[in-house]
Amino acid sequence: MNPVEVILRKRNGEILSRDMLQEFIRDYLAGDIDSSQMSALLMAIYFQGMTVDETRDLTDLYIRSGRQVKFLDIPSTVDKHSTGGVGDKITLMLAPIVAACGSSIPMISGRGLGHTGGTLDKLESIPGFRTDFSEQDFKKFVKTSGLAIISQTEDLVPADRQIYALRDTSGTVESLPLITASIMSKKIAEGAKHLVIDLKVGRGAFMQDLANAKKLGVLLQSTGEGFGQKVKIVYTNMNSPLGYYCGNALEIKETIDYLKGNAAPDIDIITRRLAREMLILNGTYLTSEAADKAVENVLNTGQALDKFREMIKQQGGDERVIDNPSLLPQATYEMPVISLKGGYVSSIDSRQIGYALVETGAGRRRLADKLEMAAGAYLPYKIGDKIEKGQELGKIYCNDKQKGFLAMEKVIDAYEFVNEVVEKEDLILE
Amino acid sequence: MNPVEVILRKRNGEILSRDMLQEFIRDYLAGDIDSSQMSALLMAIYFQGMTVDETRDLTDLYIRSGRQVKFLDIPSTVDKHSTGGVGDKITLMLAPIVAACGSSIPMISGRGLGHTGGTLDKLESIPGFRTDFSEQDFKKFVKTSGLAIISQTEDLVPADRQIYALRDTSGTVESLPLITASIMSKKIAEGAKHLVIDLKVGRGAFMQDLANAKKLGVLLQSTGEGFGQKVKIVYTNMNSPLGYYCGNALEIKETIDYLKGNAAPDIDIITRRLAREMLILNGTYLTSEAADKAVENVLNTGQALDKFREMIKQQGGDERVIDNPSLLPQATYEMPVISLKGGYVSSIDSRQIGYALVETGAGRRRLADKLEMAAGAYLPYKIGDKIEKGQELGKIYCNDKQKGFLAMEKVIDAYEFVNEVVEKEDLILE
Repeated sequence: MNPVEVILRKRNGEILSRDMLQEFIRDYLAGDIDSSQMSALLMAIYFQGMTVDETRDLTDLYIRSGRQVKFLDIPSTVDKHSTGGVGDKITLMLAPIVAACGSSIPMISGRGLGHTGGTLDKLESIPGFRTDFSEQDFKKFVKTSGLAIISQTEDLVPADRQIYALRDTSGTVESLPLITASIMSKKIAEGAKHLVIDLKVGRGAFMQDLANAKKLGVLLQSTGEGFGQKVKIVYTNMNSPLGYYCGNALEIKETIDYLKGNAAPDIDIITRRLAREMLILNGTYLTSEAADKAVENVLNTGQALDKFREMIKQQGGDERVIDNPSLLPQATYEMPVISLKGGYVSSIDSRQIGYALVETGAGRRRLADKLEMAAGAYLPYKIGDKIEKGQELGKIYCNDKQKGFLAMEKVIDAYEFVNEVVEKEDLILE
Repeated sequence: MNPVEVILRKRNGEILSRDMLQEFIRDYLAGDIDSSQMSALLMAIYFQGMTVDETRDLTDLYIRSGRQVKFLDIPSTVDKHSTGGVGDKITLMLAPIVAACGSSIPMISGRGLGHTGGTLDKLESIPGFRTDFSEQDFKKFVKTSGLAIISQTEDLVPADRQIYALRDTSGTVESLPLITASIMSKKIAEGAKHLVIDLKVGRGAFMQDLANAKKLGVLLQSTGEGFGQKVKIVYTNMNSPLGYYCGNALEIKETIDYLKGNAAPDIDIITRRLAREMLILNGTYLTSEAADKAVENVLNTGQALDKFREMIKQQGGDERVIDNPSLLPQATYEMPVISLKGGYVSSIDSRQIGYALVETGAGRRRLADKLEMAAGAYLPYKIGDKIEKGQELGKIYCNDKQKGFLAMEKVIDAYEFVNEVVEKEDLILE
């Protein structure tokens, strides 16, 4: 079939057969179909959508564009995926906790782009830490320590890598079937047999309301299940940035603090909930109570902290940062952000805060941008907190004062205040 | 503005400012915006449409991508554009008639693609006939003979040429604003101050119903008028192929027959109507009666035929074809098409006939395809005509018997018959 006919079919709202999708993607990867035809098809998919069957076929074709990792001797592999938020460092706490509870976590993670940060970037702020390991090393790490967090290898889902880059430049990121195929192909190909998805909902997330988030949730779940993967979706609030710190090294510091017992309440609630779901989903524990107790135990006894230390060491990082966080990159400037208004915080434009972080160098505009590992912000206040005019709203960490002031302006603009008491929001939705 | 932001704006249904369109098209022509971004924008325009203002801006930017021809000393230049049909050779009769009536017709025409033929291809079946003239020659021809039909020069509307090629391969041809900008930019840049548009409606046309055709008509007219051009739209029936012959040399032969007085009734009705509208639109005549009489006169006295001869000679063609049409390319095979059914013709799938012509080599699948100038078909029957089973439905002309049989099958399939009398359809709609 002519590629134009495939584009026209989707454009006109018809369903694409597996054969059509297969031929189109195969020819695209072979360079026989131009990227202008692929981007036209992606835009047609954006407008016309895809059925569950089409989405599963697309996911399968993504997977079949490369190798698939299989942990044949570990039936209970489990992973967690977050759809992306501001200050979302939960993977960093969660993976050591769940591994310390005896589960195996093969995690292939991503980098930050736009207003959201990336787990790999955060880990790479630890001196020496590497994420570019082979499949063989990946398997060895998971087998010995129970966890590994690496970057997508060259031969893992190359179709997604190419198509994702094209979606980014052609304005076709926000399509539920395309998001689903992108997430699920990687999470299936990495060998996780169980997957908990932290689906962020709110101003700082891609999904701004629960109804739409649920559409994505259903598609993610049914796609994973089509491949024999057990999937659990947890919808969480992304109206305020998570935890106290945003920024790569700053979030590693916060992770270490957390594992030592100094927890930001929001991070603690979501981390414990996701840990519970992972441990129940893969059959490590049968009840919430048993799972919660196991989590409490590995946190209290320092086993989770030890697991984090073990992972840092295994991936070439300087594990002394655990005892001495000042070995992490330190920013030249620590600039206080003074609130120009007072009252109860009624809303926080987390996306705007994400863009403020980009100004400091903590985030990227383009994938090629180099990060400032020490840059970021300290933002302890959440919706419902009371702040006086002239009080310190937070801090900006940066190596360039001018960029710091640009970020400061964006941060101040992101907060809205009212005079009456504002109720605290639920972190776990429904 | 970032190109992705422009794509997102249109994708989300917002209006693009002239500055945004200008920057996007300028950067695309300079190679700074990738064709994958342009095709994504085109697909977004397909779905979200464009306002009259956006369409006018786009048309203007197309024009400003190259040179604009101006006939400063000829205020009454007039052209005709057809949105494309099967067997539509009306330009070939019309231009000599209107020029013989004293009007100046600067015509930049196109080639056939898919199921429709192209005026340039037909003319080039005349031995020696050229269409690749400079702007200087073009102006000289129009000044001396009153007409010229040439191909788009390199520096005329280059934006349209590039974007049209991309629309063709990215499934974004059928968009009213994109069609409008493509047609009108060329018709304004070629220097025609008056334009009659033959907007084809029916199974063999892009617009299949009158309501949609009128949407396009309104957009074409308002865009032309925005540039000070006088535009008249005539909606004509494209349910049956026009005239008796389809195919390049065969349609030249039919043109010569017509100008000698042997007219197919449908061609005659539409040609005279368009001629009348052109002569009234540019002020050559004030009433329909006066215009019709002038047309009748140039046909009866042979002045229209002489004008056609003059144009052929001026553009390097062998004008002896007028007196001896057998000098035109002749097909090796003339295969009768025998009807397998009988009854009144109730419908003809003209698009299917267009594709049958492509099989014979009379049409192109891709712009790079070489044409068989002598190939084509003789198809004298129209909707409402009565045919007996076993009677000759027409003829296929070809140089390859196997291709001829493929075409024959498509032609036979294109006709549907019923037992009861079928009313003849109107050729001029409303």
